[in-house]
Amino acid sequence: MILDGSTPISVGDLARRRKTVRKFSSESFDLSLIVECIDVAKEAPSGKNAQPWHFVIVSDSGLKKRIREVCEDGEKRFYSHVRGELAEWLRIKGLSWEKPFLTDAPYIIAVFSHKKSPFSRESVWLAVGYLLLALEERGIASLTYTPPNRDEVAELLECPAEYRLEVLIPLGFSEDDKPKEPRRSVEEITSMNYFGVKLSREG
Amino acid sequence: MILDGSTPISVGDLARRRKTVRKFSSESFDLSLIVECIDVAKEAPSGKNAQPWHFVIVSDSGLKKRIREVCEDGEKRFYSHVRGELAEWLRIKGLSWEKPFLTDAPYIIAVFSHKKSPFSRESVWLAVGYLLLALEERGIASLTYTPPNRDEVAELLECPAEYRLEVLIPLGFSEDDKPKEPRRSVEEITSMNYFGVKLSREG
Repeated sequence: MILDGSTPISVGDLARRRKTVRKFSSESFDLSLIVECIDVAKEAPSGKNAQPWHFVIVSDSGLKKRIREVCEDGEKRFYSHVRGELAEWLRIKGLSWEKPFLTDAPYIIAVFSHKKSPFSRESVWLAVGYLLLALEERGIASLTYTPPNRDEVAELLECPAEYRLEVLIPLGFSEDDKPKEPRRSVEEITSMNYFGVKLSREG
Repeated sequence: MILDGSTPISVGDLARRRKTVRKFSSESFDLSLIVECIDVAKEAPSGKNAQPWHFVIVSDSGLKKRIREVCEDGEKRFYSHVRGELAEWLRIKGLSWEKPFLTDAPYIIAVFSHKKSPFSRESVWLAVGYLLLALEERGIASLTYTPPNRDEVAELLECPAEYRLEVLIPLGFSEDDKPKEPRRSVEEITSMNYFGVKLSREG
């Protein structure tokens, strides 16, 4: 289901509706929808208006397969070293070195930051916030996935030396039945005037 | 003018409408509007769902004055060392060490990241993207401003050692007539399959 965008949904409703999805249908859709979303993301503010972002849309099946192989190689090395609380959390969540979403999803957006721009990484991640909401508005599910060996993936995608891979965002229609992970309440994460001073709704 | 949110605007229209504002009216508005926006921001995804963000809403005039003093002290030191291209850019943009927006704006949101959470800064900046769009939806103008001496400002706000100040976001009604800074086209910032391969709309 693609929403046509003629009846906009509030940012709050989009943000609450969006959840992290790790299982995608292989059903594809028109590339222009993704280009529209990147066109939204590029409106984000950035340090010195340097617009330090670059987006690579991956649709080629062979290349997605290769990305998956490189990421899974990195993940195997990562998992072989994980211990303690993180290992337990990964086990409970059913996460492993296997990343089928990288080949199942019809598209992956690889997002890069320009290394030397001021506040480059901050600006790029702010733009990723815009991007995820624009995708959700169109009924497109997404995952923000950063492989442990990002430089190897960047090289595969022929990333020039002055850019850094920030994240891979597989996109598509959700086949993930898991509910959204709960969030803490706004009162728990907000203070008034000084850090730790409880929010008073009177202002 | 506050939009009532009963007629939502698309994410794209909000993103295109939002511009960086450096001059604010001192006119205030209800704190609950800001709390609503933080309630949207907290829906962002985060590494390990750690929700590594904390928001401090500053409304106290004396505290805003003190924040401005500390930031301007840091800016004076920064400006005394700026040379070359950046100095020229600052001059052209009419920017200086003076930061009146820190006392003019009725509110500042100080955004903090939890230092030890995975992908903490990335997650917090992604949530800032959500926050800016939620503010814009309510007709609230904003600026993302990170002082050069962020640790001094964090200390003033009684930030605990395990958090880091990411950004100060002064908020209010715009009195800034400057147009939005132009953005490069989506074609310039997007590649197909490999970095640098021109986007083909056929996909």
